[in-house]
Amino acid sequence: MSNTEILKKISNKTVKTGVIGLGYVGLPLAVTFANNGVEILGFEKNKDKAKAVNEAQNYIGDVTDADLTNVVKETKKLSATADFTRIKECDAVIICVPTPLDKFKKPDMSYIESSCIDIAKNMKPGTFISLESTTYPTTTEDFMKPIIEKESGLKEGKDFWLCFSPERVDPGNINYKTDNTPKIVGALGTEAAEIAEALYGLAIKHLHMVSSPRIAEMTKILENTYRLVNISLINELALLSGKMNIDIWEVIEAAKTKPYGFQAFYPGPGIGGHCIPLDPFYLEHIAKNFNFELSMIHTAGAINDRMSHRMMNKISFALNRHKKSMGGSTILFMGIAYKPDIADARESPALLIMDQLKKKGANILYHDPYIPEFTDDHGNKYICSELTDKLLSDADCVVFTTNHSCFKVEQIIEKAKLVVDLRNAVKSVKIEDGKVFKL
Amino acid sequence: MSNTEILKKISNKTVKTGVIGLGYVGLPLAVTFANNGVEILGFEKNKDKAKAVNEAQNYIGDVTDADLTNVVKETKKLSATADFTRIKECDAVIICVPTPLDKFKKPDMSYIESSCIDIAKNMKPGTFISLESTTYPTTTEDFMKPIIEKESGLKEGKDFWLCFSPERVDPGNINYKTDNTPKIVGALGTEAAEIAEALYGLAIKHLHMVSSPRIAEMTKILENTYRLVNISLINELALLSGKMNIDIWEVIEAAKTKPYGFQAFYPGPGIGGHCIPLDPFYLEHIAKNFNFELSMIHTAGAINDRMSHRMMNKISFALNRHKKSMGGSTILFMGIAYKPDIADARESPALLIMDQLKKKGANILYHDPYIPEFTDDHGNKYICSELTDKLLSDADCVVFTTNHSCFKVEQIIEKAKLVVDLRNAVKSVKIEDGKVFKL
Repeated sequence: MSNTEILKKISNKTVKTGVIGLGYVGLPLAVTFANNGVEILGFEKNKDKAKAVNEAQNYIGDVTDADLTNVVKETKKLSATADFTRIKECDAVIICVPTPLDKFKKPDMSYIESSCIDIAKNMKPGTFISLESTTYPTTTEDFMKPIIEKESGLKEGKDFWLCFSPERVDPGNINYKTDNTPKIVGALGTEAAEIAEALYGLAIKHLHMVSSPRIAEMTKILENTYRLVNISLINELALLSGKMNIDIWEVIEAAKTKPYGFQAFYPGPGIGGHCIPLDPFYLEHIAKNFNFELSMIHTAGAINDRMSHRMMNKISFALNRHKKSMGGSTILFMGIAYKPDIADARESPALLIMDQLKKKGANILYHDPYIPEFTDDHGNKYICSELTDKLLSDADCVVFTTNHSCFKVEQIIEKAKLVVDLRNAVKSVKIEDGKVFKL
Repeated sequence: MSNTEILKKISNKTVKTGVIGLGYVGLPLAVTFANNGVEILGFEKNKDKAKAVNEAQNYIGDVTDADLTNVVKETKKLSATADFTRIKECDAVIICVPTPLDKFKKPDMSYIESSCIDIAKNMKPGTFISLESTTYPTTTEDFMKPIIEKESGLKEGKDFWLCFSPERVDPGNINYKTDNTPKIVGALGTEAAEIAEALYGLAIKHLHMVSSPRIAEMTKILENTYRLVNISLINELALLSGKMNIDIWEVIEAAKTKPYGFQAFYPGPGIGGHCIPLDPFYLEHIAKNFNFELSMIHTAGAINDRMSHRMMNKISFALNRHKKSMGGSTILFMGIAYKPDIADARESPALLIMDQLKKKGANILYHDPYIPEFTDDHGNKYICSELTDKLLSDADCVVFTTNHSCFKVEQIIEKAKLVVDLRNAVKSVKIEDGKVFKL
């Protein structure tokens, strides 16, 4: 298939598009394309997920049940499979797989690699391939391209086209969804750029074309590095402010009145989620190749790494004021999701604090209306406690780790013996002396 | 004078107000108050400046000649003096003196201290005192108050009132001036807060009252620390990008399309001016008192400290491509102000690079339409070269260190042999291979 053929298929919306990975990035993207009349075949190794999609059972907060039902059951534009040989049916394939860090903060490229091999072994000539997973700059050109060429025997720019277009999913954001968030697109060569612009243009309102994949790769890292650095900065300033008897939350509200040149970030128990704690370290990884030390990322990472320990100390100091030790105390965590009003505890700082306190002999409970149960990295299973007056009054300490908007903060404080507030949850509540400790 | 007396004077605009220090903060503030009908007596140790004000000779870019002439010559609401005993005439005094760092990055509190002594020795009881100079949190309560009480024998909160209200002057900003930039006000006690709000309310459109001076002090530091950290971050990413053949400027433009959670900062030869390179180190100073290491500020400062050296290297590498050494080469710097379209070279990174190249034997010239001449910290005097075709073509290298909007970049590049662009000045110009090197 030549580039004019795929462009024609795009223009008459007969371009069959594969989406590899149906998680928090892939499923919203697949549904958005399908909503816009593009036939989507979702590839998902987890057969339960593929089955759920085919039964229109929604498991992603940013996808509406109505949209999923519509594209699966009514228009039938979306179906899912665990059979990756069906990549041969696709004219275009978009990769939305995870890129975690391993335990030594080294990028785990295995998901991208296996996607590339699956594509290379099954695609027909003339396929357009786009990667959306966050990764280090040069991945598309220097990592993906050689794998696909070697495994397929085909030639990039002639037999297939490559592109990098970073996902910008912000779980729980009600204003910006997949279709109306401007999308960065960096393709390899002008033909690939033309195809990429046409294809993404079917589903996404605003595209921002850049001159190469590596520009697009670096853009995504810059966005999330900016957040890591600024959250780490405000966390460090919050810790100092605590020592200086300065309410950092009042300081931030004041600084926000500056009408230019300032953007507010808020302190918390640490940085969670699947992007901000991870993405900057992709860049740190590739920088080593260039004998370059990224001192800002390194310092920001070190602050974040220490936050759970410092938060454990804060809880310990609060208990100490009530003449209690960590060991033997019952500590109730309010909210374990990594941000408010979502059901995702990945990389959540709450889990780290809970683990540290558990090791010190504390009895750990949690309440999170979004997360009924979970098992931590050490295999410890936790089950959400029902929020009762007795639960609150029996706990030696109640810790706010996530500020879910459904929490009735005033009532919780009234019933609790001792509160440690790591999220400024109690801002509108009068604080009884010695009962509430804030970050 | 009781607080009701001064409040009455404020409400009928008979509150005579002293402004100590008629520099880039004090003069605009004095003119803004005078414009709003408040009688202002400016105190300035530099007799030439006091004389200039009394003759309505303007020396500050953010003050208009018309405004100054109006308040000095027409309404006669503003006059200046070098006689600090006249503080006794004032009902309120606002301190706008510099707070530099010494050579060892320790805060130089001598200007604030001497202002406090001048006030204490001369004020009448019932005077309201406000500090606008950027300084470390706790200054108003723990540094100013004891000095004023000791030197005057008067009691804070009874005989005089104290307040901290940080200046937010952004030289050259055409949208936000003294009167329409929201102002943070943190007073000591409720009486002082009431007076502060009434007094500043006469001249400033939006006040944001905070609960204490230390909150206001920390707010200012947070605002400028945010800028230092983010500029240092983007400078570090720019240096890595250079090694990875990534145009950081294109990356920033792309990241800016993210409609939430991102604010763009731009790389450059280093951080200049009288605020951002200095203010965060006030906090570092006081943090030592609390055995607290501010690692983000420290790292950001270290990056900034190395920038001039790295920029010298960049110029050296560019010369090397033309088979030239630094020693013996003529290097023309375009722009030495610390930011575009202003006449201020204080803490300008250009000066550091010029000095380093001079030490390596280069012949240094500069052109800056805003700065006809200057003498650096080592006593070397420089005079602005007239910008001619011959000047440009004779130079071995032309370096853009400030992107003044009046620079005709295309013509400059055409005439130059070699250009090192540290400000993305050439963005809209086609680059001839091997002639222009960008940061």
